[in-house]
Amino acid sequence: MSYTIEQIAAALGTQAVGDTGIEVDGLAEPTDAGPRHLALAMKPQFAESLKDGGARAAVLWEDADWQALGLEAAILAPRPRYAMSGLTAMLDKGQGWDDGIHPTAVIHGDARLEKGVTVGPFSVIAKGAEIGAGTVIGPHCSVGMDARIGQMSLLREGVKIGARVTTGDRFIAQPGAAIGGDGFSFVTAETSGVEKVRETLGDRGETAAQSWTRIHSLGGVEIGDDVEIGANTTVDCGTIRSTRIGRGSKIDNLVMIGHNVEIGEDCLLCGQVGIAGSVKVGNNVVLGGKTGVSDNIFIGDNVITGGGTIVLANIPAGRVMLGYPAMKMETTMEVFKGFRRLKRLFADVAELKKTVSNPSAKD
Amino acid sequence: MSYTIEQIAAALGTQAVGDTGIEVDGLAEPTDAGPRHLALAMKPQFAESLKDGGARAAVLWEDADWQALGLEAAILAPRPRYAMSGLTAMLDKGQGWDDGIHPTAVIHGDARLEKGVTVGPFSVIAKGAEIGAGTVIGPHCSVGMDARIGQMSLLREGVKIGARVTTGDRFIAQPGAAIGGDGFSFVTAETSGVEKVRETLGDRGETAAQSWTRIHSLGGVEIGDDVEIGANTTVDCGTIRSTRIGRGSKIDNLVMIGHNVEIGEDCLLCGQVGIAGSVKVGNNVVLGGKTGVSDNIFIGDNVITGGGTIVLANIPAGRVMLGYPAMKMETTMEVFKGFRRLKRLFADVAELKKTVSNPSAKD
Amino acid sequence: MSYTIEQIAAALGTQAVGDTGIEVDGLAEPTDAGPRHLALAMKPQFAESLKDGGARAAVLWEDADWQALGLEAAILAPRPRYAMSGLTAMLDKGQGWDDGIHPTAVIHGDARLEKGVTVGPFSVIAKGAEIGAGTVIGPHCSVGMDARIGQMSLLREGVKIGARVTTGDRFIAQPGAAIGGDGFSFVTAETSGVEKVRETLGDRGETAAQSWTRIHSLGGVEIGDDVEIGANTTVDCGTIRSTRIGRGSKIDNLVMIGHNVEIGEDCLLCGQVGIAGSVKVGNNVVLGGKTGVSDNIFIGDNVITGGGTIVLANIPAGRVMLGYPAMKMETTMEVFKGFRRLKRLFADVAELKKTVSNPSAKD
Repeated sequence: MSYTIEQIAAALGTQAVGDTGIEVDGLAEPTDAGPRHLALAMKPQFAESLKDGGARAAVLWEDADWQALGLEAAILAPRPRYAMSGLTAMLDKGQGWDDGIHPTAVIHGDARLEKGVTVGPFSVIAKGAEIGAGTVIGPHCSVGMDARIGQMSLLREGVKIGARVTTGDRFIAQPGAAIGGDGFSFVTAETSGVEKVRETLGDRGETAAQSWTRIHSLGGVEIGDDVEIGANTTVDCGTIRSTRIGRGSKIDNLVMIGHNVEIGEDCLLCGQVGIAGSVKVGNNVVLGGKTGVSDNIFIGDNVITGGGTIVLANIPAGRVMLGYPAMKMETTMEVFKGFRRLKRLFADVAELKKTVSNPSAKD
Repeated sequence: MSYTIEQIAAALGTQAVGDTGIEVDGLAEPTDAGPRHLALAMKPQFAESLKDGGARAAVLWEDADWQALGLEAAILAPRPRYAMSGLTAMLDKGQGWDDGIHPTAVIHGDARLEKGVTVGPFSVIAKGAEIGAGTVIGPHCSVGMDARIGQMSLLREGVKIGARVTTGDRFIAQPGAAIGGDGFSFVTAETSGVEKVRETLGDRGETAAQSWTRIHSLGGVEIGDDVEIGANTTVDCGTIRSTRIGRGSKIDNLVMIGHNVEIGEDCLLCGQVGIAGSVKVGNNVVLGGKTGVSDNIFIGDNVITGGGTIVLANIPAGRVMLGYPAMKMETTMEVFKGFRRLKRLFADVAELKKTVSNPSAKD
Repeated sequence: MSYTIEQIAAALGTQAVGDTGIEVDGLAEPTDAGPRHLALAMKPQFAESLKDGGARAAVLWEDADWQALGLEAAILAPRPRYAMSGLTAMLDKGQGWDDGIHPTAVIHGDARLEKGVTVGPFSVIAKGAEIGAGTVIGPHCSVGMDARIGQMSLLREGVKIGARVTTGDRFIAQPGAAIGGDGFSFVTAETSGVEKVRETLGDRGETAAQSWTRIHSLGGVEIGDDVEIGANTTVDCGTIRSTRIGRGSKIDNLVMIGHNVEIGEDCLLCGQVGIAGSVKVGNNVVLGGKTGVSDNIFIGDNVITGGGTIVLANIPAGRVMLGYPAMKMETTMEVFKGFRRLKRLFADVAELKKTVSNPSAKD
């Protein structure tokens, strides 16, 4: 898998300059680059290290003086970070799995595989399941009863897709993702302590022992086109209707999406985000790492949360939030500043009280 | 799988009214319901949308005027949320796995399977393991040496049960749950920086490099009857004795239960809860999503924590807690209110200092 | 597997006293101990319960009066916690898996297994992979293309090792660990809302819908000798170069290590820690449970964080940190104290304002 600088620039729709016939077969950081690498030096500060490596060609920013950097060729990208997408897609060697259905795979007679599907060793496709054309399923995966995986999708090692889960096309699930477990939904015969705390904000009432009875999940999970789910992330089935993840949304590792949650389109949910049951998330929402969201609330379109944010109440569209509890980022930044001066504030107030109660002591 | 309204009401022990011979084969929200659905309209505000759907019958609250809602039949439930348990259990289609031992399963000659056990494709039962009557094991599961799974249990796809783990009856493990990994227990030859910080609350002392030596986990995991463990949740073995989870406790997805932890009966641990080593949790405790608990402390009976709570010290029985650090919920709610007014407080104190130090400036 | 007290003391390099020919075949806490157990009573307060159990021999602290405790023999350990390491290693019965290559394992013709390798049922070794001598691979594991697992390593049930991952010797991965998933790296064609928020600390700018394009991960994961990875933990591949975990570092369950992260040597990362992309962690760092670290920052050598710490900025070497946001532990402890007195502080300031604005009202 090698390409000329010209081929790469053409694929990216960017400008190639210099000896554009130079061939490369990998990407590298400037210092690590050899003569068959395309070095990545997207900002002037990275370009300085080009001289420490052996690259003949590099990807640079739009108006870079590539010759002054000692290069023989360059790709000049108006938004180099975006160019990374095309570059890495061209040079990705993938997992190297063999095409086709592995002889050990167990595929039910009533499952339907479209053209060009790969199923890895020890994977299981249940009755009524459908796999879209060109989809690649790795080893140790399971696709449950009546589930549907869209076309041109990829299930990495050990992905578990439960019954009644459907995905769009170009779906990607990273290793160990578990989609379609039962929702965490339990009820007590009498009003529970938790229900009382919610009404009273703090008083759990009497504390008689209570045992929990299961509410089964009859719904599935519906996932739109172009969704990616991270490693060991879990998405639970809905109770009556399906849990939903909208087109274009990307979910990182170890994220938990509870039952009945609806996530909009083009959202980004970073590592270890947790969304409790029946939350509604709008479109183009970005939740920073470890963001937690309480059950039964909504997060409006275009909301962004910073890392560690704990959302306990609805967030209107367009807000940028941070902290525990989630507040506007600027408010939380002020609070964080206040923390560092809090000890001093207590001392100031103590001093003021002394002065005010006994003004003469000041003199 | 279809039932008459009468059959459903009888199974739930609730009252059926109207044309109770109407048959349904699924549940639906009022708007989505068709003529063969039983609509769920447990509160007056949901009942308004019955007219937008096509349901002939619905589950309603106890004194609902079902005829005024245009229904032909209804089930009137005194605690509709509790009725959901029986309703969803009746109508759950499950995973649709074939009964019996799949020919690909690897079952050791010294394992003992009681009557009516199902073992899915590619599952592995190790020597000395016992599987209780009527238990269903999905694909890609492993049950380790000398482990015991109780009767009428369910292991979903890819559940890993290590050696020396025992569960009670009616145990449920969601996809990817890993029970019986080794505890995270390491020791340094000399007193470690962490031990020093614990003694001094902040001073790690000298910073010589230290390497960590493993303490092996010789204990197992003991799980009582009627326990459920969530998707990709992990429960570690104890060091000397077993880690324990009491009867009736329910654990959500991506929860981590450390070594030697003891969890009481009828607890509810929500998504992404983390409990460090040797913590003791009482009975009927509810830990909200992302609650973290430091090692070697206890949480008394009937404690409830809100989402994101970080517990750094013992909690007496009956407390409702919230925040980082965990404080009584009412205290934390006051602190959260204070955050929003903190900037103003600093300004007030600055102003007061000016006024008090120079009273005439005020005029 | 039984040993005399003398054999155990010799293996630990500690002192044995009394009838050192007594044989034991297990460890137990003082109360639970029978005559064939070695009781663990490392501190005087634990020794009191020896009389409630049936132990003939115990491990005690260095200058313990073992005869007064009614024992027939004892091992006197200068650092009993450290002695636990050797004791538990001697008495670990492990998972009890059969040696050798299980007939169901799928091993590519171009994979290379050194001497004495065990591969469990349904495990898959891809082309170009190498497995070091004496390594044990459990059931349902996969080792990807061109991956290398070092010697004397252990992969527990369902461990997923992706293409281009390499580990050192004595590597341990707990059940369900997923190493070598793709990094969570997406880019928009135009400057994204997140990029704007980072520049402005809060203003996401216009809110036009944006869709995310994938940056593929071409790098692998490089893991040093003596590393342990916890159950269902995930480590992502780097984008261009590898994600790295240094020699001797130990990582607990449900931890997420993002793409391009570099972790130094002898670090301890506790349960549910999350480290975002491109973070650099020094040597001998200890991150408490649920610690989160923002992307693209560094954590210096010997840093320790307490449970729940959210790190939003660089931490210099040697610091002990706690809180959200991470501050020096002593500062956060002061802030936590302040939280409890915050309501009172607001009241004091309100009172002061009244007094100062109307001094005569005081009289």
